[in-house]
Amino acid sequence: MAVNLSPPGGLLPVAGARLGTTAAGVRTAGREDLVLIALDAGSSIAGLFTRNAFSAAPVQLCRARLRERAAVRGLLINSGNANAGTGAAGLEAARHCAAAAEAQVGGTVLPFSTGVIGQALPATRIAVAVPRAADRLRADGWLAAARAIMTTDTVPKGASRQLEIGGVPVTITGIAKGAGMICPDMATLLAFIATDASISRSMLQPMLERAAADSFNAITVDGDTSTNDSLVLMATGAAGAPALAPESPQLAAFEAALGALCAELAQAVVRDGEGATRFITITVTGARDRDEARRVAYTLAHSPLFKTAAFAGDANWGRILAAVGRAPVAALDLSRVAIAVDEVPLIVGGEPHPDYSEAAGSAVFARAEFGVRIALGRGDAQAAVYTCDLSHDYVRINAEYRS
Amino acid sequence: MAVNLSPPGGLLPVAGARLGTTAAGVRTAGREDLVLIALDAGSSIAGLFTRNAFSAAPVQLCRARLRERAAVRGLLINSGNANAGTGAAGLEAARHCAAAAEAQVGGTVLPFSTGVIGQALPATRIAVAVPRAADRLRADGWLAAARAIMTTDTVPKGASRQLEIGGVPVTITGIAKGAGMICPDMATLLAFIATDASISRSMLQPMLERAAADSFNAITVDGDTSTNDSLVLMATGAAGAPALAPESPQLAAFEAALGALCAELAQAVVRDGEGATRFITITVTGARDRDEARRVAYTLAHSPLFKTAAFAGDANWGRILAAVGRAPVAALDLSRVAIAVDEVPLIVGGEPHPDYSEAAGSAVFARAEFGVRIALGRGDAQAAVYTCDLSHDYVRINAEYRS
Repeated sequence: MAVNLSPPGGLLPVAGARLGTTAAGVRTAGREDLVLIALDAGSSIAGLFTRNAFSAAPVQLCRARLRERAAVRGLLINSGNANAGTGAAGLEAARHCAAAAEAQVGGTVLPFSTGVIGQALPATRIAVAVPRAADRLRADGWLAAARAIMTTDTVPKGASRQLEIGGVPVTITGIAKGAGMICPDMATLLAFIATDASISRSMLQPMLERAAADSFNAITVDGDTSTNDSLVLMATGAAGAPALAPESPQLAAFEAALGALCAELAQAVVRDGEGATRFITITVTGARDRDEARRVAYTLAHSPLFKTAAFAGDANWGRILAAVGRAPVAALDLSRVAIAVDEVPLIVGGEPHPDYSEAAGSAVFARAEFGVRIALGRGDAQAAVYTCDLSHDYVRINAEYRS
Repeated sequence: MAVNLSPPGGLLPVAGARLGTTAAGVRTAGREDLVLIALDAGSSIAGLFTRNAFSAAPVQLCRARLRERAAVRGLLINSGNANAGTGAAGLEAARHCAAAAEAQVGGTVLPFSTGVIGQALPATRIAVAVPRAADRLRADGWLAAARAIMTTDTVPKGASRQLEIGGVPVTITGIAKGAGMICPDMATLLAFIATDASISRSMLQPMLERAAADSFNAITVDGDTSTNDSLVLMATGAAGAPALAPESPQLAAFEAALGALCAELAQAVVRDGEGATRFITITVTGARDRDEARRVAYTLAHSPLFKTAAFAGDANWGRILAAVGRAPVAALDLSRVAIAVDEVPLIVGGEPHPDYSEAAGSAVFARAEFGVRIALGRGDAQAAVYTCDLSHDYVRINAEYRS
């Protein structure tokens, strides 16, 4: 059911990063559900994690290890079980799995988990499987890894970019998984991006935060921020290109490529949102500040009534109006508000547009992808948020997820 | 599909208030969709209205007329069309309908509308039908009126209370409609309550606000605040009881009865929420203030993942944990948090309760009504919010509503 989303065609290897995938039987016997990523010595790493107060055990461990500025040599990722809501035993399980991977890669490993919340992680089964994943480490393991981290995702998600730094080609490749409990607050469910460019750790973290702002932090499927959201950027430096520095002429081009890759991955998460049949871009302009624009966009993106109308392909624009009207914006002057869907104006100066016709509105709502543009007329700030519709399948998937 | 909700049995007449119902063909030919309520001269009236910036034309008119302290002699209510998002023409249509009713009752009339947003109100058909409604005015018209204001409601909603003031029996009777776009912010979709007690207008408005705080302002079906929410309290004084005054010994008893009636009506709206199969009471205690408790409760009440798990009867308590964790509460100390469903503790001191069993949790989630209790351990404030689950039928109803 994913909206205009196919499995990624050519995920490019990243020098200095190898991936191995195996079946650990976390939740389903025989399914590939464990990924080991090994990084060359000297790699830098940056991470963004969920702001959910009940963050999962692996998230707590990742945060601590990054805070200690440990020299990270690997990542271990399992699907099928989130190791969240598992208390002290969950932390111990995450440590146990990471230690099994550390024995293979010879340095600190960050653990990641995704899946059901509140069930004990089968740490022994995972630890036993780690050597098999290590045996399979290979530079072109990205697509297999993208498949192994899926839960209710229907399509593996990945993207690559290439550019030159000092005449040397460098690569950025990333994978992500999403589907449900998607309203990232600093990062989405799980996304791992590696580059063989050389970038210091102190530059890498703010670079990741900038890239996330308009990508992973601008999407929502259902407004539920997960306990496990993790976005990781690794820079191996193994391409042999000159190190990126704040004054590097190629810095802007690199950040643009990274931002585009993050946007592609984040939007892929929405295109494959649980039960999604439509991909909707909500753009709010004329806001006093970016936060205000985002509040209005998210209010609409979270409206079950708008999302079910979108599912039905029903141009029930009154539901857009109602959501904008209840958005937390102080003293909104309706006479300055304009709303349109794609090329069709709905509201101008707070009043219904005289030329609006049901046929024109229906033509837009029938599209698999469309945009809603909301002009508030009270400032110069803007923001875009990407979301999907709310379908029968969203309810079915989430009512049946554990059964 | 309504949860433990039957049509009201004995709605008591209120002296000084008469109701007439007829079919105006607003949306469906032949369906009773128009209600006229006539009030004796000298009645007081109070109202609470939606905070949605795009408030409907009748809401704008009601606000203006109450602000002018007009002597209200009647209410005119139609279902089938919300007269919202209709601009200046909508205001004119509301005035036209109200004027037709004013010719019948001989004084100011407040108009109310509920139904589809963004379509022109058939004001002429309504005005033509008003005399028929006036011909049918009767003291025992409450149940017929409760039926006529329904949209996607499946059960008419009403309640009555009686008590004595100065030895004279007084009655309070109210009706409400709800179903979808339910997250009132000062008032729910439409609710009309009348009493034959004698209460001054200056006492009536704050009394209504107090009664709404824990009833109509503590419910949500889908988080979508409507453009038309209106809650009206009328006091005719026709019972002949002594006027209620701030020092009246019966004031507390009257307010308690009014509060209980409002809670019954508001909870009936949730029990009959679109597609509802479960009625859930979320209680948050130990908050720093009431607003904080409400924010946590509403975060859970609006979580699509919690609501779909409730629909499935799946004790997926990780979704409760995740919602509490993402609630906007600064510096939540997890080690003080406790969470339980009915008699089954889930989390104590931020850790999974050692005695929790899937069987115990499933037994609670299988109930048509259950409670979630969240103790934050950071203060003395508390709040309760009432909500329902998110079912296949919610999506079906809202994907098909206009077709």
